Amino acid sequence: MSARKDFLFLSEPDCIDAGVLDAGRCVDVCEEVFGLLAQGDYLMGGPNHNSHGMGVVFPKSSPFPNMPVAGPDRRFVAMPGYLGGRFDVCGNKWYGSNHANTAKGLPRSVLTLMLNDKETGEPLCLMSANLLSSARTGAVPAVATRHLASATAGSVAVLGCGPINKACLKAIATQLPHLKRVYFYDIFEAAAEKLADWARQTLGVDAIVENDLQTALSGAEVVTVAASRVKPLVVQNDWLHPEATVLISGPISADDAFWLENRVVLDHVALHEAYVDEAVASPDKQAAYDGVIGGPLYRLIDDGRLPALKDFTDLGTVLQAPAQRADTGARRTVFVACGMSVFDLAWGYEIYRTAQDKGLGTPLALWDTPYAE
Amino acid sequence: MSARKDFLFLSEPDCIDAGVLDAGRCVDVCEEVFGLLAQGDYLMGGPNHNSHGMGVVFPKSSPFPNMPVAGPDRRFVAMPGYLGGRFDVCGNKWYGSNHANTAKGLPRSVLTLMLNDKETGEPLCLMSANLLSSARTGAVPAVATRHLASATAGSVAVLGCGPINKACLKAIATQLPHLKRVYFYDIFEAAAEKLADWARQTLGVDAIVENDLQTALSGAEVVTVAASRVKPLVVQNDWLHPEATVLISGPISADDAFWLENRVVLDHVALHEAYVDEAVASPDKQAAYDGVIGGPLYRLIDDGRLPALKDFTDLGTVLQAPAQRADTGARRTVFVACGMSVFDLAWGYEIYRTAQDKGLGTPLALWDTPYAE
Repeated sequence: MSARKDFLFLSEPDCIDAGVLDAGRCVDVCEEVFGLLAQGDYLMGGPNHNSHGMGVVFPKSSPFPNMPVAGPDRRFVAMPGYLGGRFDVCGNKWYGSNHANTAKGLPRSVLTLMLNDKETGEPLCLMSANLLSSARTGAVPAVATRHLASATAGSVAVLGCGPINKACLKAIATQLPHLKRVYFYDIFEAAAEKLADWARQTLGVDAIVENDLQTALSGAEVVTVAASRVKPLVVQNDWLHPEATVLISGPISADDAFWLENRVVLDHVALHEAYVDEAVASPDKQAAYDGVIGGPLYRLIDDGRLPALKDFTDLGTVLQAPAQRADTGARRTVFVACGMSVFDLAWGYEIYRTAQDKGLGTPLALWDTPYAE
Repeated sequence: MSARKDFLFLSEPDCIDAGVLDAGRCVDVCEEVFGLLAQGDYLMGGPNHNSHGMGVVFPKSSPFPNMPVAGPDRRFVAMPGYLGGRFDVCGNKWYGSNHANTAKGLPRSVLTLMLNDKETGEPLCLMSANLLSSARTGAVPAVATRHLASATAGSVAVLGCGPINKACLKAIATQLPHLKRVYFYDIFEAAAEKLADWARQTLGVDAIVENDLQTALSGAEVVTVAASRVKPLVVQNDWLHPEATVLISGPISADDAFWLENRVVLDHVALHEAYVDEAVASPDKQAAYDGVIGGPLYRLIDDGRLPALKDFTDLGTVLQAPAQRADTGARRTVFVACGMSVFDLAWGYEIYRTAQDKGLGTPLALWDTPYAE
């Protein structure tokens, strides 16, 4: 009996042919995932089932000249998980990031995703995951836009104009039929100009590069934040439109009022509880807080100025309880998204199945018959 | 400018052609790794740099009929790391295990290893890691045999006769030039008979299947323990040869005297400290202890019956400080090995480089030029 079972390798072009760039479809799939998160039909890493993943953390300095040391956006991370529903698959996203990549003509992060048979552990698919990952990262705030922002919103501010916020804007735009005007802000004006050009041509919107952050924010009903860790944004709450929906997909520095006075909706409460557990178990809790988007929020909770994480609302719960949505509209809402392997599994599974249907990719096999040890 | 950089896919047959089954060479490479561990020229997962890895933990029961539930040897684990020295490479081992695989003609675990450029994160090699992983798992106690056991030892007891202990015996035998007799014990006698046949033919030793554990142990100068988690072994300290070297690569239940009265040498102290940190941070410390080989040791430390982990000796330290070796010989020694990604990285790197030299494997590429997002 041969135990050979081919698995697929999908290069980036294969993933494109399989539809990885279809932002609208990705938003629908990610909305499904929020439903599964709320129901509990998933497992992420660790004994609490909710860890973001496990990184290789580079030290600030090292006596070993070859050892990588901490640098902008520099890390490796493994993000394992199981996702239920119609996906019903295990897998692991694994990536290395280094800001210095961009000077070499490479993306800041190089990502792959492996999908595995949940029963046997056999690989089903290894895929290039750069486009997959940015698509799902963009789709998550777009699901929030669909459910938390005003359906008539016509203006967006884009804070940080790299590939992540491009993916966010592309996905958010699919949810805003009245979108007319987009403000672009970046510490590098050329990046803002480039993204504005793309938006003008692709989305047909008024695209305005704005070098003053306060001005960029003042007219925006939706704000998407995804700036590099190289220099986090500093935002004052009173700069924001009174009914703005602020979608946070990257680190942000804001005054306390931003966290204390706005309605905060999390991507998934249990994920943030796991972040705090891991920070507590780490050698330096404050350093761990510094490394995650929710850090400023966790500090306010630790200080007793906000209720415990378990009392926060998350998006999956909003989707399942329409009554919670009535709370939106009359006030400012902040949505915090930190990245979860279940979104990679869902969108990766879609691309994998489409690739199978279209006959894309390179079949590989671990063995014809496993070596009889 | 094309940013295409091929990476290699190595199937199991490719790995065999590249020498993955060469136990003696693997022992030498793993000894190098113990040196790097002692020097600190490595990073494993997590902020403490010493985590074994991150698992997807299946629950005991689930309201979702498709969700995998806990079962014998059933888990997925990601094991990321960086290894320095001449290896100087990042990577991640990722595997799924399920005891039920064996009934399907599959290995209990299906493993892959990805090696990555430490600077850019680009994949260098994806390889089938079943043979690689069992070779390094066997080589680790063989390094301990080289440095902790009597060079004249002529007898070994093999407790648990599955593929892991076969790899252990194969590697340990390379370190015992006077090996004459091997006792085989397994709760399934057929497994013991099969491994005994192999040892008789391949190692040219007297191979004795022994159904009574105490008898199997009484004459053995070296004991290798790698039984399945399905039914851990129960050992009494006074059954052991007074100068036995006991090499533990799988769960064992022993009386307290086994831990309290023997010299205990760990694979790597910092790994065990990380296990304890993770158990403390987990929802159930005792359950976490139950899931790791060192659990019984950690309980005795918690109870104040053994000194703190930091006061234990590990093998890398023994290698660096020959004076510590003088302590061996006159008493029983227990060596505990739990598995570290750095051994996978080292042996994987060797196989990868050999495969490159021999022109083995299938070249793959993520892209010709990354999609300009």
